[in-house]
Amino acid sequence: MKRPVIGIVGAGQLALMMFEASLRMDLDIHVLATNADDPALRVVPCGRVGDPRDASVLRAFAEGVDVITFDHELIDIDLVRALEREGHLMRPGSQALSVAVDKRRQHMVFAELGIEQPPTYVAAGVDALRSAITSHALPVVVKHASGGYDGRGVHVIDHHEQLEQFLDAISSGSAAECAFLVQPKVQIDFEVAVQVVRSVHGEIVTYPVVRTLQEDGICTMVLFPAALPDELCARATTTAHRLAEHLDVVGVLAVEFFISDGQLLVNEIAVRPHNSGHITIEANITSQFENHLRAVAGLPLGSTAAVVGAASMVNIIGAESADVTAISTSPIEAAVHLYGKSHRPGRKLGHVTAVGESIDEVISRAHRAASALAYQGAAQ
Amino acid sequence: MKRPVIGIVGAGQLALMMFEASLRMDLDIHVLATNADDPALRVVPCGRVGDPRDASVLRAFAEGVDVITFDHELIDIDLVRALEREGHLMRPGSQALSVAVDKRRQHMVFAELGIEQPPTYVAAGVDALRSAITSHALPVVVKHASGGYDGRGVHVIDHHEQLEQFLDAISSGSAAECAFLVQPKVQIDFEVAVQVVRSVHGEIVTYPVVRTLQEDGICTMVLFPAALPDELCARATTTAHRLAEHLDVVGVLAVEFFISDGQLLVNEIAVRPHNSGHITIEANITSQFENHLRAVAGLPLGSTAAVVGAASMVNIIGAESADVTAISTSPIEAAVHLYGKSHRPGRKLGHVTAVGESIDEVISRAHRAASALAYQGAAQ
Repeated sequence: MKRPVIGIVGAGQLALMMFEASLRMDLDIHVLATNADDPALRVVPCGRVGDPRDASVLRAFAEGVDVITFDHELIDIDLVRALEREGHLMRPGSQALSVAVDKRRQHMVFAELGIEQPPTYVAAGVDALRSAITSHALPVVVKHASGGYDGRGVHVIDHHEQLEQFLDAISSGSAAECAFLVQPKVQIDFEVAVQVVRSVHGEIVTYPVVRTLQEDGICTMVLFPAALPDELCARATTTAHRLAEHLDVVGVLAVEFFISDGQLLVNEIAVRPHNSGHITIEANITSQFENHLRAVAGLPLGSTAAVVGAASMVNIIGAESADVTAISTSPIEAAVHLYGKSHRPGRKLGHVTAVGESIDEVISRAHRAASALAYQGAAQ
Repeated sequence: MKRPVIGIVGAGQLALMMFEASLRMDLDIHVLATNADDPALRVVPCGRVGDPRDASVLRAFAEGVDVITFDHELIDIDLVRALEREGHLMRPGSQALSVAVDKRRQHMVFAELGIEQPPTYVAAGVDALRSAITSHALPVVVKHASGGYDGRGVHVIDHHEQLEQFLDAISSGSAAECAFLVQPKVQIDFEVAVQVVRSVHGEIVTYPVVRTLQEDGICTMVLFPAALPDELCARATTTAHRLAEHLDVVGVLAVEFFISDGQLLVNEIAVRPHNSGHITIEANITSQFENHLRAVAGLPLGSTAAVVGAASMVNIIGAESADVTAISTSPIEAAVHLYGKSHRPGRKLGHVTAVGESIDEVISRAHRAASALAYQGAAQ
């Protein structure tokens, strides 16, 4: 059987790690990069640069591959649908993507399936947004329905001056007519995530629930095990299975949850390998990247069983003054993943994962490794 | 600091796995493939095909990279020396390579350093070979001094008819004037191997000793832990350190040993990532491939600590009737590495590694995974 050529829309670190996984599976990967310095473009033999929202660009890319998948959500869903109608295989397909790219549609799907979520109000345009916010006690969280990632597009409004500033900024910008979600801020005790992978035949495999730690809306650390009551883990997993089936997902579905006063509240989903799943490279028999490709290629899925008792992943995030480098002279007792991205404050430049048997020990090893890599660069 | 561009002579599975490791380190890799269908050539953006024993080919390759390393020993050591004199960086260098490519020189180095080895007699040419063999009781093992791998170039002579056939074959072939090693066959209780990695600054890191199982001279399985008395493990490790320093190795040095009646006898060495070290991808914090590249690139070495209690690697070797495929419908509870090589009986097509806490359990999981992948192909 000829293996399919897989085209990845996007050439960031997710595409890079998918390419890495593909090397063990004898699969061919092409990438469509948005920028000439995207990490995967440098190392994938078949790469090109272009805007995936441009019909001629995406169509030409699709014609060179057997199936398309995605490393980001900055796509034109109508164009994806059009290409599907022309017979191009998209995995995940437009049904799943249309929900993943739009938090308003996510909110509607959660409501339709009876999945508990924070109280949520949808507002389209500035006037509706003002009315939705002022009808609630502050603080509230305002989210752009689409286009956000890594905390961008999410605003916490604590007091009225902030509200006016925010509304002014919106009114004068291109987002004036956009849709927003308004959520009275709930008490978040902690956050967890779960990855499931669904094959073309509807087979679903599930990774263990992980705990995620965020700072300024960016994930900084992921921990396995999540140390969550079994009942909540089971509910998170069941929720992910229901969403994967409902959305006809092929590939990874990542679901993020808040734990608020003992309640499991869904936050958002992604239908691609996800930062909270990087830990699976070292902690599980088959990584999320390999299983995503297996699903996209129509292959049977691999085991998601954990191979260690504890694991900790720490993102290496660009700081004002520090770059990142592999040239650490401190002992690094974690697996190092550098993405080869140019330095920018707030940008994810790499990650480290420590595995072992004790959660405290792997947390401390991962932190030491991330610090050693980041600080060393600043001294150069 | 600009990272060096690393040129790998050879584009087999070792180059493929070095390339895979390079993707986490933001290093650039070029490969010089011997054949157009070599596994790494398909996936490395900067690859070319040529005979590395051809001076113009190797020189042109060297001119495009900052440092050269190797995935096989089928090289012209005089040419490597000449390029070193011209200022090209070779890691490992000609001193280590000249010994690695020549079992006669290995024998001399072992003797010089007082490292115990099976009784060994060197014979150059057919007449000397006949005399060396007939002066010992059969069975004896005859090894070509150079050019062998995976059991090729190693002959066990059990009885006199076999001896005559063997000598006839040698006399009529191109090996008539070659050097051979003759070793009265020792009782081999089992075999072990150890990898050490030496940096450009002389820093050495050591992987745990592993047990290796062979069939027909080809490694079929590698087990961690080796379940060897501490004293023998320590002696194996010390031996590897002494050899790495003596030969001024930069990168991986793999040393294979026989255990014979409680004695540790050195068998042979390689100065590159080695089949007995594939298990380090899953079983250790830093794989042999990453550490080899770290050494070659002049970076500090990574931790070799084990992250699991037990691991088992099984090679997937081409059989007469079976191909290999990732399309197994049996559950695969091991990490799968397929090299993308065309099928040939006896050829290493991939490997699987199972990790866990119980050696019996990982052996059984690795065997099941390898069988599932190999048998499935036969049915296609």
